[in-house]
Amino acid sequence: MSRIAYVNGHYVPHSRAAVHIEDRGYQFADGVYEVIGVQGGKPVDAGPHMDRLERSLAQLSMAPPMGRPALAHVMAEMVRRNRLRDGILYLQVTRGVAPRNHAFPAGAKPALVMTARAASGPPRDLVEKGCAVITVPDIRWKRCDIKTVSLLANVMAKQQAREAGAFEAIQVDDDGMVTEGSAANVWILTAEDVLVTRPADSAILNGITRCAVLDLAAKAGLAVEERRFSVAEMTAAKEVFLTGTTAFVLPVTEIDGSPVGGGAPGAFTRRLLADYEAYAASGGVA
Amino acid sequence: MSRIAYVNGHYVPHSRAAVHIEDRGYQFADGVYEVIGVQGGKPVDAGPHMDRLERSLAQLSMAPPMGRPALAHVMAEMVRRNRLRDGILYLQVTRGVAPRNHAFPAGAKPALVMTARAASGPPRDLVEKGCAVITVPDIRWKRCDIKTVSLLANVMAKQQAREAGAFEAIQVDDDGMVTEGSAANVWILTAEDVLVTRPADSAILNGITRCAVLDLAAKAGLAVEERRFSVAEMTAAKEVFLTGTTAFVLPVTEIDGSPVGGGAPGAFTRRLLADYEAYAASGGVA
Repeated sequence: MSRIAYVNGHYVPHSRAAVHIEDRGYQFADGVYEVIGVQGGKPVDAGPHMDRLERSLAQLSMAPPMGRPALAHVMAEMVRRNRLRDGILYLQVTRGVAPRNHAFPAGAKPALVMTARAASGPPRDLVEKGCAVITVPDIRWKRCDIKTVSLLANVMAKQQAREAGAFEAIQVDDDGMVTEGSAANVWILTAEDVLVTRPADSAILNGITRCAVLDLAAKAGLAVEERRFSVAEMTAAKEVFLTGTTAFVLPVTEIDGSPVGGGAPGAFTRRLLADYEAYAASGGVA
Repeated sequence: MSRIAYVNGHYVPHSRAAVHIEDRGYQFADGVYEVIGVQGGKPVDAGPHMDRLERSLAQLSMAPPMGRPALAHVMAEMVRRNRLRDGILYLQVTRGVAPRNHAFPAGAKPALVMTARAASGPPRDLVEKGCAVITVPDIRWKRCDIKTVSLLANVMAKQQAREAGAFEAIQVDDDGMVTEGSAANVWILTAEDVLVTRPADSAILNGITRCAVLDLAAKAGLAVEERRFSVAEMTAAKEVFLTGTTAFVLPVTEIDGSPVGGGAPGAFTRRLLADYEAYAASGGVA
């Protein structure tokens, strides 16, 4: 069966799915997106993803391409047409097509594109052994809280990680404090068994998995602090892990070539992964 | 006659020119571009534009889509097919089409898109009366020296200017120093008749018009300094102007609602505009 993509009102074969060259997403990165997990044919945390999408659009003064029920319908239809059980939906909204000019075009219609892909969480060996990461300077813009397609700095960071034989690049701000990975949030467990992750300021994207894990940790009675932490604090941590839609809860066992937290996934990380897997399997927040 | 666009080897009607939704320019802003002036049917400063394009590509480890002679041929063909006398060529190169994944795809073919548009310099009334600008915090990433399509911050700045009734937004770094406009470099003339523009560091794009004007000023025997300058120095300047492919040399006569340099275009600005117009009409550096 060939994959189906959704492009501005039409379900089309993925291989022929196209947008105009003057779509502002292509010429200006003037668009936002969401990556939504699908488990057992149902979107995971659909509600929080829609909330965040609406926030991103509002921050850019961009109109939603359609109402939330219509969008939910397209998502369900994409799952159905692609016979998707476990995987992801990728959804992108741009300001639409207009003659090239930086300022917002008058009367352009927001464009909506959606794709579906089968996948089932992070690679099993990474979950079991933990992943290696490198640290890189965070060179991104100052509004990383908006989930835009302006991802070139993330691309360069991720590529740097790959070339170093690592899974992810952890970005570090000018003060030496960790911001986030190229596509995941970062957590540490301190010597006092306190889970720490950066507050959702404008330097990071407030991950949907991040929010879910905050809740799960609280429900499990774990101590959690949302505060900034340094690279030094991270390398000295008992446990380090990443959270994200495709990463789930992924242990980090090596940072810049040195083992962290004993070099093996820790108990808190494993516990939170199990809790998150159960949560995701239940569909999360509708 | 309908406009013609160039898309990956094909000359197609502009209205039907499209790229795949998984072109990395669309999903990651993983691409670079050039805007090249055309006068009398000939590209202006074709050589420097090609040099800069090659530099941008190299900075992103992206292969050129074709050799320089082939690219020059496509440009000439676009001028011919669009019967373009005076206007611009827009040229975009992305890393190509690949399943969505941050790191560089193996074996993706760089994509090349080109459009043509008739135009003839900045609006005459702005040239004669000067333009109004506002100042805004520079929230962009740290590699503004690469001419990428990751332009969302520029879009937001330009839109802010428009909503304030101004022509351009001048971006200001964390130290209170001017970086550049959303689509133009910024120059001032000091009380001592010294032309000052920011050095081409990683906070600005090294404009082709900027480079041409540096040369023209030197040839005219004018004193020029490449150094950073503050907003305070700019608002106190005798003259302020912008340079860019479409702005040419554009006087600024109002900053954040207050007149600058007596509220009218100054003699140095007019002189440099005249010199630049003659330079551009000659085709610049081939």
